[in-house]
Amino acid sequence: MSFAARTYVVLLHHPVYNREGRVVTTAVTNLDIHDIARSSRTYGLGGYFVVTPVQLQRELVSEIVAHWQGSYAQADQPRRQALELVKVAPSLEAVVEQISAKHGALPLLAATAARLAADTMGWHRWRETCAAETRPVVLLFGTGWGLTDQVFDQAQIRLAPIWGPTDYNHLSVRSAVAIALDRLFGG
Amino acid sequence: MSFAARTYVVLLHHPVYNREGRVVTTAVTNLDIHDIARSSRTYGLGGYFVVTPVQLQRELVSEIVAHWQGSYAQADQPRRQALELVKVAPSLEAVVEQISAKHGALPLLAATAARLAADTMGWHRWRETCAAETRPVVLLFGTGWGLTDQVFDQAQIRLAPIWGPTDYNHLSVRSAVAIALDRLFGG
Repeated sequence: MSFAARTYVVLLHHPVYNREGRVVTTAVTNLDIHDIARSSRTYGLGGYFVVTPVQLQRELVSEIVAHWQGSYAQADQPRRQALELVKVAPSLEAVVEQISAKHGALPLLAATAARLAADTMGWHRWRETCAAETRPVVLLFGTGWGLTDQVFDQAQIRLAPIWGPTDYNHLSVRSAVAIALDRLFGG
Repeated sequence: MSFAARTYVVLLHHPVYNREGRVVTTAVTNLDIHDIARSSRTYGLGGYFVVTPVQLQRELVSEIVAHWQGSYAQADQPRRQALELVKVAPSLEAVVEQISAKHGALPLLAATAARLAADTMGWHRWRETCAAETRPVVLLFGTGWGLTDQVFDQAQIRLAPIWGPTDYNHLSVRSAVAIALDRLFGG
């Protein structure tokens, strides 16, 4: 199974920081579902998990996905194909369980964050490392102001922040996922 | 002046195709303003033009930008810095005029599209070509179902579609811009 086909994007809505550095649960954003599903489909991923502990929000995501698999599917086939990849889960632990059950192996957790951290790995090296792996891979992204230190420290791999030629690093999570997938699977 | 600093993202809302291949004017999407401004700021661009012939839509964009430069600026400085790059214009011609006036040279028009076309240039080659240029550069993106043939043919450079390892190429325009800027100015 290719590196891409055993890779999953996981978008956490909890636990993440808010602007003041407090741990919060963010609300699901409709365009995060669509944009990240379309990017995941473009790069051939195994799936995309939207993670929130709020049951009503998980139901909302499921309804949006179901909507685009109903009558709209005829009108917009590409969108249906993208949204097929979307799964919901209440926690990162639940995601790890699901992926482990499917692949018969624990996934390698890779965290991406805008902030600097010790022991980060460059994207090119990570691309080579993973291509030689056989385990499934989870690419963790945080909403709000990013993954908490606890989640970040839990990851076996910490990817270097995505920088351009400036000192500004406030990409939207949708853009960060798109760039990350292109760096790992593009070209 | 660096390649990035003389490059402008131009997002066209007219003329573009709709799902049925008709030429339409799309509505401005709030997150297109924010996401693409943040990506443009990350990669150090000269500016980001939101182009629509509809005056009320241009006023809407200006109001959104002004909002984030008012009292909210204190709370979210990075967003203010990103939105400073946003300009509005009624047409591509008006954009070309503004950029020419500022730089004293006509910009090189580069079109990006999801569809295949003859004479497309690869991203790496274009990166090298532009770094050796001195003219300003316009990176043209279409909303809806993409740039019309007329606009596409008007561009001096046609960039290859952004592909992953699949035959699916329905990225959101927000994601496509992010990936394009990373390919040209990243890493």
